[in-house]
Amino acid sequence: MKREHQGTGSIPVGEKDFRYVDREDLDRFVRECLKRAGADDPSADAVTRSLVGASCRGVDSHGVRLLPHYIKALTGGRINGAPNLRYSRISGGTGRLDADDGFGHMAGYRAIEEGMRLADENGIGAVTVINSSHFGAAGSYTIHAAEAGYLAIALCNSDKFVLPFDGVESFHGTNPISFAAPLSKERPYLFDMATSSIPFNRVRQYGAIGRHLPPDVAVDENGTMTTDPERAVSLLPVGGSTYGYKGAALAGMCEVLSAALTGMAFGNHLLRMAGPEYATPRHLGHFFLVMKPEAFIDPDLYREQMESYLADLRSQAARPEARVMAPGDREWAEEAARCKNGIPIDPAVWAEFAHLASNFGLVPLAANSE
Amino acid sequence: MKREHQGTGSIPVGEKDFRYVDREDLDRFVRECLKRAGADDPSADAVTRSLVGASCRGVDSHGVRLLPHYIKALTGGRINGAPNLRYSRISGGTGRLDADDGFGHMAGYRAIEEGMRLADENGIGAVTVINSSHFGAAGSYTIHAAEAGYLAIALCNSDKFVLPFDGVESFHGTNPISFAAPLSKERPYLFDMATSSIPFNRVRQYGAIGRHLPPDVAVDENGTMTTDPERAVSLLPVGGSTYGYKGAALAGMCEVLSAALTGMAFGNHLLRMAGPEYATPRHLGHFFLVMKPEAFIDPDLYREQMESYLADLRSQAARPEARVMAPGDREWAEEAARCKNGIPIDPAVWAEFAHLASNFGLVPLAANSE
Repeated sequence: MKREHQGTGSIPVGEKDFRYVDREDLDRFVRECLKRAGADDPSADAVTRSLVGASCRGVDSHGVRLLPHYIKALTGGRINGAPNLRYSRISGGTGRLDADDGFGHMAGYRAIEEGMRLADENGIGAVTVINSSHFGAAGSYTIHAAEAGYLAIALCNSDKFVLPFDGVESFHGTNPISFAAPLSKERPYLFDMATSSIPFNRVRQYGAIGRHLPPDVAVDENGTMTTDPERAVSLLPVGGSTYGYKGAALAGMCEVLSAALTGMAFGNHLLRMAGPEYATPRHLGHFFLVMKPEAFIDPDLYREQMESYLADLRSQAARPEARVMAPGDREWAEEAARCKNGIPIDPAVWAEFAHLASNFGLVPLAANSE
Repeated sequence: MKREHQGTGSIPVGEKDFRYVDREDLDRFVRECLKRAGADDPSADAVTRSLVGASCRGVDSHGVRLLPHYIKALTGGRINGAPNLRYSRISGGTGRLDADDGFGHMAGYRAIEEGMRLADENGIGAVTVINSSHFGAAGSYTIHAAEAGYLAIALCNSDKFVLPFDGVESFHGTNPISFAAPLSKERPYLFDMATSSIPFNRVRQYGAIGRHLPPDVAVDENGTMTTDPERAVSLLPVGGSTYGYKGAALAGMCEVLSAALTGMAFGNHLLRMAGPEYATPRHLGHFFLVMKPEAFIDPDLYREQMESYLADLRSQAARPEARVMAPGDREWAEEAARCKNGIPIDPAVWAEFAHLASNFGLVPLAANSE
């Protein structure tokens, strides 16, 4: 159960009936499905990159498991598969991207790149996105910036699944915050966290594989604590029943920056990601911040500082059978392992993928023979 | 015990033997003590503003309770009472302030104001501070920006008191994050949270008034959970023993932005705030981000969005005997109540203040006659 404590959303590997697939084949399959369903090349590329990347890092809750959902949103008309993105620079350090109801993933990569251009010029840049849709894992975009040498924050609101502190009904989304920072000798420093204790995609994933939830993370429709993923209708903010005012405040910051600052919908008014209606655009907003280390400090000193900090952190004394890790360590280790051993696909997703292959006349995913 | 769940650090009012004082008299007393101890006028003004402001909002852990500590740091030589602040703009949207080992409060107000100037020009600005000292409540600076119409984030690292996730010894500071956003018809949207479940100043405050800590927030020197404030040596990150990887990641972001990005010391290397050594400057770093709403969206739409969001939030159904509040609601209500009824001073602080009055030949604080 160790992985549950690290929040990657990873499916425990070695589960019976899981199939393992190569990254290249998964990449092909996801991209082709999206194109057959009506996505143009840039949209299909962006969604594939985000989903396959999340699956490789072990963030299965936001990985290829979501492909059938996006296909439904695309064919239903909620998502525009061939959007005309319009970027407007507003001031020296800020801009806004209109996603034209396209995939949030394409908008996310474009927005963070515009942020990088602003940071090149002024040291810092912030870009909001309007008229967007679900953008998958927030870490997709902060990693993109950090691998190019920038510090980055990405955040978003989402449809209501989380209690306000002292409340009894869903109000906020699981509202993720990701932060990444560049490192010179390894993959970026990275976190990507829901401001609930667990993300709702993860609740569904637990349900799909028939497992119980941890305690103090979810309530049923009566507002009573539950560990049954099928009965969970609302999540507690991080900090739980005692300190959840902190998670709720962070969730609120996501609402302010991605809805109040964009004119888009707040979590409690957003159309449900999970339908049943898939024809109407959801008009999500996102927020991205990018900074260049050298706009603050000598970049060599920055990198030395990061190395020294991470070396100290990783050498801390740990609980029995545990190891103190830096944010991102688990994800990058998982990526290395999955590149070697294949990416696990659970039986429910495997069946959905077979159905998609058949519908679209595609060569099905090939399971590794191990 | 309600206040404990809202994290303001507020002393429960009505406690036996508490004295109540007027804001004006408290302001006079704090300022005069600082000046007699060697602070120049701008330093004394900034520290007084931050401490008295925190005490008024109910954030007693970071309020005037800290005055004797600062006096010790000033007279001991740790803090330069007449610093020569040097601000350097580095790029269009970034700058760095050298605090010359002065009070972090003066550096904080100056840095956030430089951030506001950058935001006036480019929509956004970030300012780091180097060679600083403890800056009190991070909210002091975000409130200052938000009351002038800006969104702001302030964060800092601090000396080690918090376990890394899966660790058994202190590594991070309680590393606070504050976010504030301007509102048109009321005081700012505001949160100011330690990334531990509770701040260590609060542990000391519990100790001073002889109360027990809540469960799952602190461990003793053996790494065993404790509710005894006198035995607590290390705190858990927010999220506690199960989801503390989230609090630890947020604490890490504070280390990256206030130490790696400034060249200052990480929490695990910082000299102890509480001494016993008070002669050596601590070389703290801070980080401030400021944004103008109108650099992203029509400001009227932003304000309408905020009003609509807060009205929705405050009208949510609540747990029995509770009320759903927006971040900041409790603090601003407390400020209104304390402006009317006086600011409570606990017996330990009252005795210390009497001692300071005697030492400095000052008129003691006047207790209200109620």
